[in-house]
Amino acid sequence: MEQELAAVPQTAVVPFADRVAEAVERKRSQLVLGVDPRPELLPLELRAAAHAGRAAAAEACARFSCGLVDAAGPYVVGVKLQLAFFEALGADGLAAFEEACAYARAAGLLVIADGKRGDIGSTARAYADAYVQATEAGGPRVDAITVNPYLGSDSLEPFLAAARRSGTGLFVLVKTSNGGSADVQELTLSDGRPVWHQVAELVADWGEELVGEHGLSSVGAVVGATYPRAVGEARRLMPQAILLLPGIGAQGATPADVARAFTSGPASALVPVSRSVIYAFRVDGADWRTAAAAEAARLKREVWTASGW
Amino acid sequence: MEQELAAVPQTAVVPFADRVAEAVERKRSQLVLGVDPRPELLPLELRAAAHAGRAAAAEACARFSCGLVDAAGPYVVGVKLQLAFFEALGADGLAAFEEACAYARAAGLLVIADGKRGDIGSTARAYADAYVQATEAGGPRVDAITVNPYLGSDSLEPFLAAARRSGTGLFVLVKTSNGGSADVQELTLSDGRPVWHQVAELVADWGEELVGEHGLSSVGAVVGATYPRAVGEARRLMPQAILLLPGIGAQGATPADVARAFTSGPASALVPVSRSVIYAFRVDGADWRTAAAAEAARLKREVWTASGW
Repeated sequence: MEQELAAVPQTAVVPFADRVAEAVERKRSQLVLGVDPRPELLPLELRAAAHAGRAAAAEACARFSCGLVDAAGPYVVGVKLQLAFFEALGADGLAAFEEACAYARAAGLLVIADGKRGDIGSTARAYADAYVQATEAGGPRVDAITVNPYLGSDSLEPFLAAARRSGTGLFVLVKTSNGGSADVQELTLSDGRPVWHQVAELVADWGEELVGEHGLSSVGAVVGATYPRAVGEARRLMPQAILLLPGIGAQGATPADVARAFTSGPASALVPVSRSVIYAFRVDGADWRTAAAAEAARLKREVWTASGW
Repeated sequence: MEQELAAVPQTAVVPFADRVAEAVERKRSQLVLGVDPRPELLPLELRAAAHAGRAAAAEACARFSCGLVDAAGPYVVGVKLQLAFFEALGADGLAAFEEACAYARAAGLLVIADGKRGDIGSTARAYADAYVQATEAGGPRVDAITVNPYLGSDSLEPFLAAARRSGTGLFVLVKTSNGGSADVQELTLSDGRPVWHQVAELVADWGEELVGEHGLSSVGAVVGATYPRAVGEARRLMPQAILLLPGIGAQGATPADVARAFTSGPASALVPVSRSVIYAFRVDGADWRTAAAAEAARLKREVWTASGW
């Protein structure tokens, strides 16, 4: 909320979609750093702490996360922090999550909480309070959160309300990158379409009121890069949604697989990369920060080229 | 894991479903206390702390949760802790969650973490590690967790693995109690059934290998008591699943609405009650513990009678 003016607080909130667009154009990057800290995979200098009890492990994860922000920050527009890995370390892990969030925001990066939350009524509002609602302390704690659509529109309303009021964003799971995504998402509806097409249309509807100056909505969608044809279909069904496209790297997809996601503009898709960047040191043996920076820089260029912008 | 014997650790794990059945029969109760601590609704004696910063608010929520365990514990078989309300207080909230979990388990109650989690691959394993996987410290931290099926079978596999290995349970969202549940769950498939019927069949399949001595599976399902007809259909589609039936009380359903859930046995369904019990003092002005105990006792009897056992 750096641009907030005391006199006109309502209009001065810059929508998430516009902040993404500005960052993508300034950095010429559509990359998001996926931070999935697993104690057993940490670099040698942090691994001892990772096995010295939960509090030490959480602190090691925080140091790893912040080090990655320093190293890869110049090549990405944001970080996607995977809440599960922090939650696995309980209250200490949540403290590490908060530290990593604050560090990434201070570094000028957008922060996406990857929590895939979804609940109803006052519980959904509590999740919004937890992650995206503006607090008295000033400004939301993260810029966007991933959410699950299975519970329907009323479960997403508090996140939409936060988007309207505080300029935060959300990414709704539509077609996920895993094999099991077929079980529910690919079920055939009576009109012949798969379930996820209908979810995509709901996302387009929900996002219509939240389109910013760059023509993109703050209601985005998660679509697995592992299904290139689905990426193209998703682009057509949700022309204004920012698509978050996991699956490149460890899951086997390549930048070429997501090229068609970018037809709505250079910022109309974001590519999260995690394991292939943050654990690059395990492959090439270099210093972990150096290895992460090199891999992020390489992927940034490759994705930008594939995007055609 | 109280009954675990050093010599035969494998066979000594009592499956979640059997622990539920044993508790239901011993206590003649199918009630689960839903703990949704909201700082702004706390009893007067705790409310000052609730507004004295996050750490104090979290501590007040822990005291409230533990006080409810003391008061309503005799009338319920378990507690369902709503993670969102703890997460809304960040790392301090998670510490309160852990305190409440430990307190409820020490009081002999089953603990269900209501987190509605769902993710893939190593992330799904991290969620299982966080909540249901047996840890080196001995035994799982909670007895069961609620999970979201939208990402499909591979997203649930780590929870099923924990169930096999550690005797924990899971409740899969099938047909939720809110109005928006129609958006995805009620979409009509090509064979004329709603999406949630297919999810129910998946749940029955996943649960088949985890049926305990009482004929019930440790893979349960969440079905909204607000849709009485769906409760009956769910019972037919998942004859061995323990149904978790939210919606009684504040959401408008009554014990009579869930009667048909119990045809597979007295423990074949659990009824979580939250607001109407934990905030009962706000209605009748009595001491909050006394009010919660009275309302839990009343509902326990009503549900038991409605169940026909």
